[in-house]
Amino acid sequence: MPEYITPFTRQVDLQNGTIPTAPLVHKRYLSDLKGLFHDAAAEAAMMAANPLLYEVHEASPDIPMDDGQLRYSTTVIFPGKVGDEYFFTKGHYHANGSRAEIYYGLVGEGLLIMQTREGEVNIQRMTPGVAALVPPYWGHRTINIGTGNFAFLAVYPADAGYDYGAIAEKGFASLVVERAGKMEVIPNPLWQR
Amino acid sequence: MPEYITPFTRQVDLQNGTIPTAPLVHKRYLSDLKGLFHDAAAEAAMMAANPLLYEVHEASPDIPMDDGQLRYSTTVIFPGKVGDEYFFTKGHYHANGSRAEIYYGLVGEGLLIMQTREGEVNIQRMTPGVAALVPPYWGHRTINIGTGNFAFLAVYPADAGYDYGAIAEKGFASLVVERAGKMEVIPNPLWQR
Repeated sequence: MPEYITPFTRQVDLQNGTIPTAPLVHKRYLSDLKGLFHDAAAEAAMMAANPLLYEVHEASPDIPMDDGQLRYSTTVIFPGKVGDEYFFTKGHYHANGSRAEIYYGLVGEGLLIMQTREGEVNIQRMTPGVAALVPPYWGHRTINIGTGNFAFLAVYPADAGYDYGAIAEKGFASLVVERAGKMEVIPNPLWQR
Repeated sequence: MPEYITPFTRQVDLQNGTIPTAPLVHKRYLSDLKGLFHDAAAEAAMMAANPLLYEVHEASPDIPMDDGQLRYSTTVIFPGKVGDEYFFTKGHYHANGSRAEIYYGLVGEGLLIMQTREGEVNIQRMTPGVAALVPPYWGHRTINIGTGNFAFLAVYPADAGYDYGAIAEKGFASLVVERAGKMEVIPNPLWQR
């Protein structure tokens, strides 16, 4: 007889994308993303205020990190910019690169930016009801390009793991910025293969 | 360099839970579930009309069935009953029993009934915004207990597979029926370990 895990549900707050009963919530402040925004002067100027950029509401942090297990969470990115660059998540590859992930848009308007280690970029628009596949081996970051919260549900293999290093070091090959009041995707001058 | 899969998104219709661009839609009629409802006479009486019970909108049928890959779909169960028993999905275990699944309620009101092979039953109520874990080794079926469509998003490992046999043969240990205008969960007299 296998070691059974007891089924459970969690209610997502459809107004703001949080999981009020989540047993674990990570809060990411600007200081947690130090050095990731392209405008270093704008980043430094905001560091004293150190705004909250996003929260991750982990529904199932106790699910064992075994092959075949799934975890899920919601991420809520608040609206704002550092200089001309919209608030985003740190971004990562899966340490176990063969693991995919599924995102489902809940609230607001965002972009899902994905990148291979060779530098191919793929950008998908995420709004409520949009379900996205992050295939294996693609690094991924989400960006709030709207004026309110942007939130999505994420489902991922419990043994996916995180590799933040590559993106912390080189970022993504594209930046998402506001220019003359409009969202624009531009090449990242600091990015090199 | 890994063989990259190209990322993609699909828009879920938030009014009815369908995926209008799904490349594969399964339609399940009463005749596809012959013998699964407890009231055999009621089932036989409805067989000429052979109503459509539910649809599965597969977003990603071409994702390879490899370890680490994820697929997703929506299931739309129409409202109705066979005798006193609410319309439900066939129900299955994963052939690869160690694979979990995540459900997310989109539209309407349903139940998620899960059962171990030893006969333990767990029932969760699914409404919009409710995310449920179907842990490894639990058989699972969904039931529309409302008056409109019940729809949910499912995310599952692409190598989970299906074992329909055990449930087709013995069903679940509990039945979900309407008695005197109210939903009731009763023991299944035909179910034996």
